[in-house]
Amino acid sequence: MPDKDLSALFLDTVKDIYYAEKQIYKALPRMAKAAASDQLRAAFDKHHDETEGHIERLEKIFELMGKPARGKKCDAIEGIIDEGKEIMEEYADTPALDPGLLAAAQAVEHYEIARYGTLKAWATKLGMQDAVRLIDQTLAEEKKTDEALSKLAVTAINAEAA
Amino acid sequence: MPDKDLSALFLDTVKDIYYAEKQIYKALPRMAKAAASDQLRAAFDKHHDETEGHIERLEKIFELMGKPARGKKCDAIEGIIDEGKEIMEEYADTPALDPGLLAAAQAVEHYEIARYGTLKAWATKLGMQDAVRLIDQTLAEEKKTDEALSKLAVTAINAEAA
Repeated sequence: MPDKDLSALFLDTVKDIYYAEKQIYKALPRMAKAAASDQLRAAFDKHHDETEGHIERLEKIFELMGKPARGKKCDAIEGIIDEGKEIMEEYADTPALDPGLLAAAQAVEHYEIARYGTLKAWATKLGMQDAVRLIDQTLAEEKKTDEALSKLAVTAINAEAA
Repeated sequence: MPDKDLSALFLDTVKDIYYAEKQIYKALPRMAKAAASDQLRAAFDKHHDETEGHIERLEKIFELMGKPARGKKCDAIEGIIDEGKEIMEEYADTPALDPGLLAAAQAVEHYEIARYGTLKAWATKLGMQDAVRLIDQTLAEEKKTDEALSKLAVTAINAEAA
């Protein structure tokens, strides 16, 4: 079954996170627009820029594999983003809006951290050193974003809402 | 708008993760049954037992708030679990099945880590010390599970598939 080995699973998962990154890229400006706090808006804007870089790195990985860059519908990110939209609607104009947006963004980050962590382990096993390097760069940025959001969550933003 | 403050958002999010934990509790035995490796099956069985404890802790948090323990449909976990099911079907009887199951399980863990991290920050802001303690116990277990799965991912299981 050579078409269903680890290499195939790696490609499937790159397609999954490629689709996810594109959805995140679309969602972030809406989240930035909704945010009440300048700090949170700035964090979303910054991550929007970074996400563009993550998409480009994935396109390089497709290239390394000699495959066209193509996403595969990712139910997980759809669900995570839908929950974020629900929060934006239910808590619009309330002091809990920003904490809710932060929570949604951290769920997104953790999905990405899980996926890139997995991809890194697989690329290592598959001896794809160039892919490992690209994945590592993105993984480091995702972790940094999550930490920055965690800091915002325990300082300014939740303090306003409590 | 006293019904849409941080306390309301906290309750909504406890309902979200309560629903998610129950879905995870149902999914884990299926994942354990599908796993080819004894180590992975044992990891899923162990986490199944722990998940029972996580559900009980959430029920204690509902009690602390004087609210009935009731879940709220969580699109995120549905999407994450659906992706896991897809992997189980597409990679059944292939060497990539266990790596795929591991990846699905780590996506689940990261969703939980994100949610419990958020809940901990909010419970702290809300001065709910007993809830903070309960959340912390679960959060520590989720992180430990994720680390154990990461170790499995880079050692035995992916080695078989590569």
